[in-house]
Amino acid sequence: MFRKDPFGRAWVLISPERGLVASDFGSVLPLPQRSPLSPGNERQTGPEIAAIRPSSTAPDSPEWRMRVIEHPSALVEPRPFRVEGDALFRQAASSGYQEVIVEHPDARMTLDSMPRSHLVDVLRLYRERLALLAAKPGIRHVQITRNVGRAAGALFEHPHAQVLAVPVGSRWVEEEVEAARSHAREHSRCLFCDVIERELAVRERVITHNEAFVAIAPFAAKTPFETWILPRDHDSAFTGVASNTLPLLAELLQTVVRALNDALDHPPYNLLVHTLPAAGDRTFHWHIEVLPRLTQQAGFDWGSGFYVNPTPPEDAARFLREALALREVQE
Amino acid sequence: MFRKDPFGRAWVLISPERGLVASDFGSVLPLPQRSPLSPGNERQTGPEIAAIRPSSTAPDSPEWRMRVIEHPSALVEPRPFRVEGDALFRQAASSGYQEVIVEHPDARMTLDSMPRSHLVDVLRLYRERLALLAAKPGIRHVQITRNVGRAAGALFEHPHAQVLAVPVGSRWVEEEVEAARSHAREHSRCLFCDVIERELAVRERVITHNEAFVAIAPFAAKTPFETWILPRDHDSAFTGVASNTLPLLAELLQTVVRALNDALDHPPYNLLVHTLPAAGDRTFHWHIEVLPRLTQQAGFDWGSGFYVNPTPPEDAARFLREALALREVQE
Repeated sequence: MFRKDPFGRAWVLISPERGLVASDFGSVLPLPQRSPLSPGNERQTGPEIAAIRPSSTAPDSPEWRMRVIEHPSALVEPRPFRVEGDALFRQAASSGYQEVIVEHPDARMTLDSMPRSHLVDVLRLYRERLALLAAKPGIRHVQITRNVGRAAGALFEHPHAQVLAVPVGSRWVEEEVEAARSHAREHSRCLFCDVIERELAVRERVITHNEAFVAIAPFAAKTPFETWILPRDHDSAFTGVASNTLPLLAELLQTVVRALNDALDHPPYNLLVHTLPAAGDRTFHWHIEVLPRLTQQAGFDWGSGFYVNPTPPEDAARFLREALALREVQE
Repeated sequence: MFRKDPFGRAWVLISPERGLVASDFGSVLPLPQRSPLSPGNERQTGPEIAAIRPSSTAPDSPEWRMRVIEHPSALVEPRPFRVEGDALFRQAASSGYQEVIVEHPDARMTLDSMPRSHLVDVLRLYRERLALLAAKPGIRHVQITRNVGRAAGALFEHPHAQVLAVPVGSRWVEEEVEAARSHAREHSRCLFCDVIERELAVRERVITHNEAFVAIAPFAAKTPFETWILPRDHDSAFTGVASNTLPLLAELLQTVVRALNDALDHPPYNLLVHTLPAAGDRTFHWHIEVLPRLTQQAGFDWGSGFYVNPTPPEDAARFLREALALREVQE
């Protein structure tokens, strides 16, 4: 069937008859404890920008808990953003900030396996880096991306996140902002809040939730098992998330990634934080999108020019709920 | 550098420093003469919808010159398009038309190798199918796609095109329409006509041209060696192209595909006709986009959330012009 993406312009073709063939990309394999990003190898990477480490230790020395380094193949760098050209052809030097956050000294500590308290500190570091870069002059878009597995474009196997801040808008977020504005004009309410309310009432696409966050399979999911995590209270930016809700976000994130790992045998995935640079805007509602990479065919289909998703989100949500129920029985 | 796509919202990162590594996808290999789509195998495919064949021969018999058949794994089918739901969740049965055009009885006859006169007839058949499907009730978007090579999502190795007609808009074309409308409001001129005029004056991104068509590497190319073919006279729809210009389009198409084949060793590629369903609209200018599939990394980058193109279009255009010059010397 055709489904209209409420958060954008796309119509998605949900096509269960096409079937989801076995994953093209396999599983993300467990890592050894040590990697090129491990303590002791600090000189092999870009210089340290920041770190959570004992105050008695020097930058680029071991003994850190997490570490922010320069992106080794950054596409942008700090420099003035001057747009040249005219209505037809506009260009500018690729200005911006691109960092890598090494999330744990132990390469085996993935988002779902690290201690909850450590993940809370990781999320706090995300918030800090985003706020710091959003405050730089001219920055218009900030984002956190976590790519897991080479098939998902990961730079390293060692668990890490990327931070990007640029002086131009992101098409993804801008399209969502536009949909939210249009909804607000018509209904005087936040589009995302309305969707959350409806999903929690209907339940068929809810994967899990707690007091502060909800995880859903979006109505017009573009790829199989696409999962969104949204704060239940309205806010436009991740930088606005209160410290006392971070443990609830950590809980939900771990639950979602464990469900995907159990149900899909540790798929490569991309995790993207969609946020405005600053909190307080009525027209957007920050959220996290988790996109497992299962098949090359799933997603955008060049033959049709549309997104084709063989897995109805209702089926994906039920499958993930069952995986969680099974895990609870086993624990 | 950042470049703003004049035909959309995206900012593209042109990043020659990232380098274009050798193709991940290899070459499209020459085919044997016969394939499952060859004459004599008509019963193995979907039933014939139309064909160019002697009037004395029956449908689904051999002796055709080209043939239109049902798409073997169609995502849409003819049925009423009734949208159910509300502002948040809208859906409808996947209604529409999806056909395959088998372009030549001989599987070795690719777009660039078939006789020019045969390609003119293929283009005439494209125009006929598009016009016929555009006239069906409720159709909002029509397109022709040619996928060459499995890496480009081709259904068959035998040269063919796909025709799609659906009651919903295509995000690609809608974004281009919006950019064109905005330009027309401000400058009272067609955006595409203005770009063509500028490109022909500047020349650095022009690959080749004739009296009626021009092939360029677009200023904000999203992927390496992306090539657009545009009619020099304004028209919004491929269905409006005059019969006496079809030979000029055939000439330019063959030149472009030969240049790509020579320069990039027969890459898999997607060819997409961007068109409105009907001619006569001032706000759009139909064109063909040819997208070679070279590397998995090139194009949309999940880490950055932007399109990253390692090959500046000026370099791509020069490389393709050189390939054409070399071919001329050799012929």
